[in-house]
Amino acid sequence: MAHTIEQIATALGAKAEGRLDLTFSRISEPADADKDALALAMAPKYAEDLPKGGARAAVLWEGADWQAMGLEAAIFAPRPRYAMAGLTKVLDPGPEIAAGIHPTAVIDDTAQIGAGAAIGPFVVIGPRARIGENVRLAAHVSVAEDAVLGDDCLLMQGVVVAARVRIGDRFIAHPGACVGADGMSFVTPEKSTVEQVRENLGQTVAVEQSWVRIHSLGSVQIGNDVELGANSAIDKGTIRDTQVGDGTKIDNLVHLAHNVVVGRDCLFAAQVGIAGSTTLGDRVVLGGKVGVSDNVKIGSDVVAGGGTNILSNVPAGRAVMGYPATKMETHIEMYKGLRRLPRLLSQVADLQKAVSKLSEKD
Amino acid sequence: MAHTIEQIATALGAKAEGRLDLTFSRISEPADADKDALALAMAPKYAEDLPKGGARAAVLWEGADWQAMGLEAAIFAPRPRYAMAGLTKVLDPGPEIAAGIHPTAVIDDTAQIGAGAAIGPFVVIGPRARIGENVRLAAHVSVAEDAVLGDDCLLMQGVVVAARVRIGDRFIAHPGACVGADGMSFVTPEKSTVEQVRENLGQTVAVEQSWVRIHSLGSVQIGNDVELGANSAIDKGTIRDTQVGDGTKIDNLVHLAHNVVVGRDCLFAAQVGIAGSTTLGDRVVLGGKVGVSDNVKIGSDVVAGGGTNILSNVPAGRAVMGYPATKMETHIEMYKGLRRLPRLLSQVADLQKAVSKLSEKD
Amino acid sequence: MAHTIEQIATALGAKAEGRLDLTFSRISEPADADKDALALAMAPKYAEDLPKGGARAAVLWEGADWQAMGLEAAIFAPRPRYAMAGLTKVLDPGPEIAAGIHPTAVIDDTAQIGAGAAIGPFVVIGPRARIGENVRLAAHVSVAEDAVLGDDCLLMQGVVVAARVRIGDRFIAHPGACVGADGMSFVTPEKSTVEQVRENLGQTVAVEQSWVRIHSLGSVQIGNDVELGANSAIDKGTIRDTQVGDGTKIDNLVHLAHNVVVGRDCLFAAQVGIAGSTTLGDRVVLGGKVGVSDNVKIGSDVVAGGGTNILSNVPAGRAVMGYPATKMETHIEMYKGLRRLPRLLSQVADLQKAVSKLSEKD
Repeated sequence: MAHTIEQIATALGAKAEGRLDLTFSRISEPADADKDALALAMAPKYAEDLPKGGARAAVLWEGADWQAMGLEAAIFAPRPRYAMAGLTKVLDPGPEIAAGIHPTAVIDDTAQIGAGAAIGPFVVIGPRARIGENVRLAAHVSVAEDAVLGDDCLLMQGVVVAARVRIGDRFIAHPGACVGADGMSFVTPEKSTVEQVRENLGQTVAVEQSWVRIHSLGSVQIGNDVELGANSAIDKGTIRDTQVGDGTKIDNLVHLAHNVVVGRDCLFAAQVGIAGSTTLGDRVVLGGKVGVSDNVKIGSDVVAGGGTNILSNVPAGRAVMGYPATKMETHIEMYKGLRRLPRLLSQVADLQKAVSKLSEKD
Repeated sequence: MAHTIEQIATALGAKAEGRLDLTFSRISEPADADKDALALAMAPKYAEDLPKGGARAAVLWEGADWQAMGLEAAIFAPRPRYAMAGLTKVLDPGPEIAAGIHPTAVIDDTAQIGAGAAIGPFVVIGPRARIGENVRLAAHVSVAEDAVLGDDCLLMQGVVVAARVRIGDRFIAHPGACVGADGMSFVTPEKSTVEQVRENLGQTVAVEQSWVRIHSLGSVQIGNDVELGANSAIDKGTIRDTQVGDGTKIDNLVHLAHNVVVGRDCLFAAQVGIAGSTTLGDRVVLGGKVGVSDNVKIGSDVVAGGGTNILSNVPAGRAVMGYPATKMETHIEMYKGLRRLPRLLSQVADLQKAVSKLSEKD
Repeated sequence: MAHTIEQIATALGAKAEGRLDLTFSRISEPADADKDALALAMAPKYAEDLPKGGARAAVLWEGADWQAMGLEAAIFAPRPRYAMAGLTKVLDPGPEIAAGIHPTAVIDDTAQIGAGAAIGPFVVIGPRARIGENVRLAAHVSVAEDAVLGDDCLLMQGVVVAARVRIGDRFIAHPGACVGADGMSFVTPEKSTVEQVRENLGQTVAVEQSWVRIHSLGSVQIGNDVELGANSAIDKGTIRDTQVGDGTKIDNLVHLAHNVVVGRDCLFAAQVGIAGSTTLGDRVVLGGKVGVSDNVKIGSDVVAGGGTNILSNVPAGRAVMGYPATKMETHIEMYKGLRRLPRLLSQVADLQKAVSKLSEKD
């Protein structure tokens, strides 16, 4: 689907100059852009590659001299990455999921499906499930008994929504994501080695005993505008529901354990793992592979660098990194010290000799 | 399904007092409990919230004065978390998988299915697979050729059991879990950079060569009462089988590589990864994101804190943490030192000045 | 299928002696080998176990005295692990996927399927997808619109190939792997806390705002001879394609983010995660759980030990480990220092006392 420069600029709320009637259906990096692609050159260093391609129009930074670049039209983006959101939205064709219900789908008689659904092959919808309007379910999706999906949700191939899960509007889930597996919660008849270690941090004493399962009676509640990455998993709560607030975005292979409560507008990069009963405020950003221990409280606006292991509470607004997590500044000081440590060891050895010599003379 | 206080107490092996005929089908946190929910207040701090809700009965700690709390009945739990196991088991409705074999399931003529099976839509069971009694398979499960499943197993949506895998009784697998993918095992014709680094820990010398696949001829053997989390993967062995012992519980997104041998009653939290040919004893507990190198031996009753990277053998009964893993106590001492390191650097600088001054005078 | 000693030796390009007509269909560890299994004893320590089993023939190291071991035949492997590749390839029966297209598969009229396909139950192939020759697709695989698969590919149960993904020949993907989920890319209207932290490493200032989605217009390009592990995910690029070069092997639960470019013949162990727009050269080996930050450049022939977190560029040929990643040698020196740190603290305290005493006297 082609769009004119004018239409694209309007969609972005941006200014445009030159031939506003030129049409484009693709965007491209400057060197790869042919005459049918709108080039992205939102900083001078990218504009240098424009001559390598054949772009007739580009998205540029404010005040750029597009005519000197040999272009016929330009759109000006004051916040380049933000412009990317608008541009890519306009041009994304979205997944092809045919309108209506595919004849192979197995939908329980007691399930309710809203108007405008597009339900793909081999989808399974269980008893009493309620699906909102304009929901798109790709091949092999399953929605179990009593689950609720809001309007305009998009569930990609093989996504699983388990029993009694409740999800708001505009939820996007990527292939293999699972909402509502049972929480991992076990207990031993006698004190376990884990309980021993919490007390003494030392050696454990073996007790031959097996783990007994604590079942998950709660489910999962997800707000509006949440996104969940490929093969990620959000587990059911034990008594109450595990919760994810409005606008939170979660990447691939992320694990949220039972009873976790996540606020609104958080961002979790890939392979984040949050252990049981931990709560996080709003707008918390966790880099890739961040781990958070169980029963911890993370304040709003906390930012944790990639690979951080958070073992205890973090107050609101703090930037942390490391294992265990500490203030980013403190971590960097400690790390600088560590780099100097081998030299420090020899300096102290020298000092010991010098002091010993002085003491002898003394 | 409602249960009387008497029935619940009997199921828990616990003592009850008051109106033993009151019935409940739900449990709840004290503040959320209405008159139809049994409140959980197994420590005094939780009982404080009872007045916020409308509970008529609660599960309390031993010796609690239930009448003073305005309750009509109480159950007394000597080990609260252990009581949770019994309580939640009684009240868990379990997944709705209709009895019998769904007409869409594709079951090979040579497969054997035990009595009492509940097999959902789009399940695939391959040649010569043998499924025990009372097995429940949710939608989109596949069990490949020659695989064996014991009695009373529950495989949730999309679980994959690969060829020749043998699994005991009462196995539970959550959505997307995969038992029996091929192991990741590759070799180069000439010495690889990895082999170089093992010898010199330093710079590598490039040899242009490709990886050649070592196929997995072994499979996976899993004991009785094992649980496997969502999107976790246990790989086939190369020659012999990868093994998981009775009673071991594994959380979401865990990876067990080829030839790994896990003892009985172990507990692995989410995102644990165990590399090839490593062996673990019984009752080993690994916190979230723990990694274990290949060809390592972990003794029984070892406990590793979340985020630990185990690079070498760990003797039985040791509590470890850190990267690389060390005794928990040692790790904490080292970390305390690290926190004081920036100050230590300036102290040593001061000492150098002082000693240099003393030496000059000397 | 049984093979003679002579056939096996020829397949390995190895020398054999003794009864070259003995036939085997299995290989086994020495202690487990019965008379129908070819024993693997490629180093003297393994040969010690031969008497525990009943092997008639074995694969041995060069120059081994097979007759003294009581064997009737032997194959000599100059590079033992490399011999394993040939041996296991000969003996692997491969997955049973019936030739032809299973009647339950849903294949769009506009899709093209090459000759020799084996397509299992409930497979879905979308509009305009192009599948090469001799491709095997196990149960529940889906290949979306406009995707391209080369010849001789093997996709195991539940693998997802998303729209417009292009994959070369001989690709192997294990259960639940996902190629082409949308990249995780979000931006805020105003400066986000992450952008604040990049500038000041310190405290963040809350701005109440939501994340806006940058759609993925690119897709994924995968070369020839690539392997992808169970439940791994490779995301689409934003404008251009995410790329994986020929011969690269990727284990389970790995995440490759949008715009990542991976060279040829790389090897990534399980749970590796590579953040957006990072590029890696050829033959890069990443141990289990290695994380690489976004927008980083990793040179060819880099080797990173398990658990390493790479936060900045790494030059070609370097062996690294640690968090943050440093040269392996440097890391080990730093770690040795850390082990001695608690003692160092008390040594410095002693020195301070001694110097203070000397200064007083002075």
